[in-house]
Amino acid sequence: MKYTQFKLETESAISSARACVLKTAHGEIETPFFMPIATKGSVKTLSSVDIEHLGSKIILSNTYHLYLRPGLDVLREFGGLHPCMSWSGILLTDSGGYQVFSLTRLRELTEEGAEFASHIDGSRHMLTPEKSMEIQQIIGSDIAMVLDECAPHDLASDRMKQSVDRTTRWAQRSKDAFEIGKSSSNNPGAQLFGIVQGGVDPAMRKKHARDLMSIGFDGYAIGGLSVGESFEDAKTIVQELDTVLPKDQARYFMGGAQPHEIVEYVKRGIDMLDCVLPTRNARHGLLYRFTHGDVTKPDFYETIHITNEKWKKDTTPLADVVPGAEDDVIAEELSRYSYAYLRHLFQAQEPLGQRLATLVNLRFYLELMKRIRREIQNGRF
Amino acid sequence: MKYTQFKLETESAISSARACVLKTAHGEIETPFFMPIATKGSVKTLSSVDIEHLGSKIILSNTYHLYLRPGLDVLREFGGLHPCMSWSGILLTDSGGYQVFSLTRLRELTEEGAEFASHIDGSRHMLTPEKSMEIQQIIGSDIAMVLDECAPHDLASDRMKQSVDRTTRWAQRSKDAFEIGKSSSNNPGAQLFGIVQGGVDPAMRKKHARDLMSIGFDGYAIGGLSVGESFEDAKTIVQELDTVLPKDQARYFMGGAQPHEIVEYVKRGIDMLDCVLPTRNARHGLLYRFTHGDVTKPDFYETIHITNEKWKKDTTPLADVVPGAEDDVIAEELSRYSYAYLRHLFQAQEPLGQRLATLVNLRFYLELMKRIRREIQNGRF
Repeated sequence: MKYTQFKLETESAISSARACVLKTAHGEIETPFFMPIATKGSVKTLSSVDIEHLGSKIILSNTYHLYLRPGLDVLREFGGLHPCMSWSGILLTDSGGYQVFSLTRLRELTEEGAEFASHIDGSRHMLTPEKSMEIQQIIGSDIAMVLDECAPHDLASDRMKQSVDRTTRWAQRSKDAFEIGKSSSNNPGAQLFGIVQGGVDPAMRKKHARDLMSIGFDGYAIGGLSVGESFEDAKTIVQELDTVLPKDQARYFMGGAQPHEIVEYVKRGIDMLDCVLPTRNARHGLLYRFTHGDVTKPDFYETIHITNEKWKKDTTPLADVVPGAEDDVIAEELSRYSYAYLRHLFQAQEPLGQRLATLVNLRFYLELMKRIRREIQNGRF
Repeated sequence: MKYTQFKLETESAISSARACVLKTAHGEIETPFFMPIATKGSVKTLSSVDIEHLGSKIILSNTYHLYLRPGLDVLREFGGLHPCMSWSGILLTDSGGYQVFSLTRLRELTEEGAEFASHIDGSRHMLTPEKSMEIQQIIGSDIAMVLDECAPHDLASDRMKQSVDRTTRWAQRSKDAFEIGKSSSNNPGAQLFGIVQGGVDPAMRKKHARDLMSIGFDGYAIGGLSVGESFEDAKTIVQELDTVLPKDQARYFMGGAQPHEIVEYVKRGIDMLDCVLPTRNARHGLLYRFTHGDVTKPDFYETIHITNEKWKKDTTPLADVVPGAEDDVIAEELSRYSYAYLRHLFQAQEPLGQRLATLVNLRFYLELMKRIRREIQNGRF
């Protein structure tokens, strides 16, 4: 069996959802799972100790940001991001492509790669598939991503096809460079995932998935969604790809997903997701909390604005947004602070507010994934 | 014995330094001690759990800020700041006077009190000795401070005398109001400290101390220093007051003090200090660390700017700024992150940077006080 790093445990009889275990160079993780985002080597307001306390076994970090800061010389000095940020869990990195296409003044896009000006100091750089692999191997990611072209979802069909074909060629170059650099990298046990593109055209998506599968990757991501298309379109694409992508490998939905969207993607065969929403929303005082909390039924959660007047004197503990969850270090800390105190911290612009809200929301997302997994195993999902 | 809440343990034979124990409604604390500042009910970037982990038994919070936000109705709902911020240790509050005199547009200063416009929304308020006591009793402080007039240190002698005399009258009114409100307050076991004013004139200072002593307080603070006068003048005042203030009560030096200044004040009989420097400097990337670390000798510490290029690849753990200190939760966390990682966090403007630096500096200040106490007990201070 080729993909021994992925073990199917339970497949749902009533949906495409599955409970699996993914093995990596930094430990095993149960699927489906959610990845907190440590853009620049820190989940905003949190340390790696906090992430351990939250119980997340994986984080995602951004190749583009780390390449600019702290830079490759510092990452080389440390022997990768794991020792730099003192993280012993699993690390996934994106290719850097998404930021180059969205954050920078893109200077020139050629078959070779993308030339861009840094959003920090305007300095010129070239991101190619080979460069992206080199950076990710210096970072020492456990799961590296191929460099893909991030085209708008509403690109005309012929131009989308050109873009997807280039992404296939870049994926092959990524794989070749990844294999060559592996042994001398900061993580010789790393895996490489391909990224399926093709906008909202199911046929183009499926063709691209097959092209990538014939190159052969350790797992497959679905890119180019959560970029403005409708939720219906996104669900359709995930569902169509479920029929094509190999059952015995991990499928990763890239980009933003609200809790109810996560439920729908997992039902369509997704194993891994990342999302900036729980952490970014936390910093704006928007909290997630369970209502009835049964993830197999609608309306299992709601969001609240902690700055709302109605929480002014509410002494409910923050731990209660996730009723019935395990009593760990974070739960213990959050049981000591109330909605009213958190509201006060936001009103007074105390930095502790953003930190507590981040803990609340990540704890919610991580508990959500646990519940989904439990329901898959119970045959109810 | 009247002041049973204060116990002298060791008096130095070679200076006026002393090691004592102060008993309060929320526990005992060994002197000399330093108070981290939780201006608005949170030591910036830290929770009360963090303060417990740091081992500080006391924090200082600001009456003026808490009065405006979260406001008296919220504090009443909680039954004081202790439950609001989940702090079970000792709480000292200032009178609010300093902020009224420094932060607000002061509208009118009369014998009755100070009318001011809130720095948040411009709303009008009146701070009187009676009002200050009421607020501090709703906050539920363990150690409340009398309302004093905060005059510039270089005021002409006759005007300084008028200001000091008013402060004496306000001190009497503070005490009267404090006694009346005590039983119905959120902390009936609270203590009230007087504040000695009088600029840099030793005679006026001593007279004021005696005036306050004949009113009678649980402890005495020295106010109106660290406001632009010379360090020599400040030392002289502290030394002169050492000969007047009662030996069997606590002496509190109010306001900014660098580590070497703390050493000099403690040698002159000071038991308690607060200072915004370790936390504020931390947020600007300035760290304190011991050099030889023998607090009885000069140059026992230094400060470094973590953003300096020289730390770029320095993998020394942050715990090492305090060599030989106890191995607690905070030390364990700080042993995992390096100078280079902290520098990166500051460069990348990651909020975790300010938090880690705050932990580093508070750990330094708290360890400094432990070492001073140990040397007093060893007869070397």
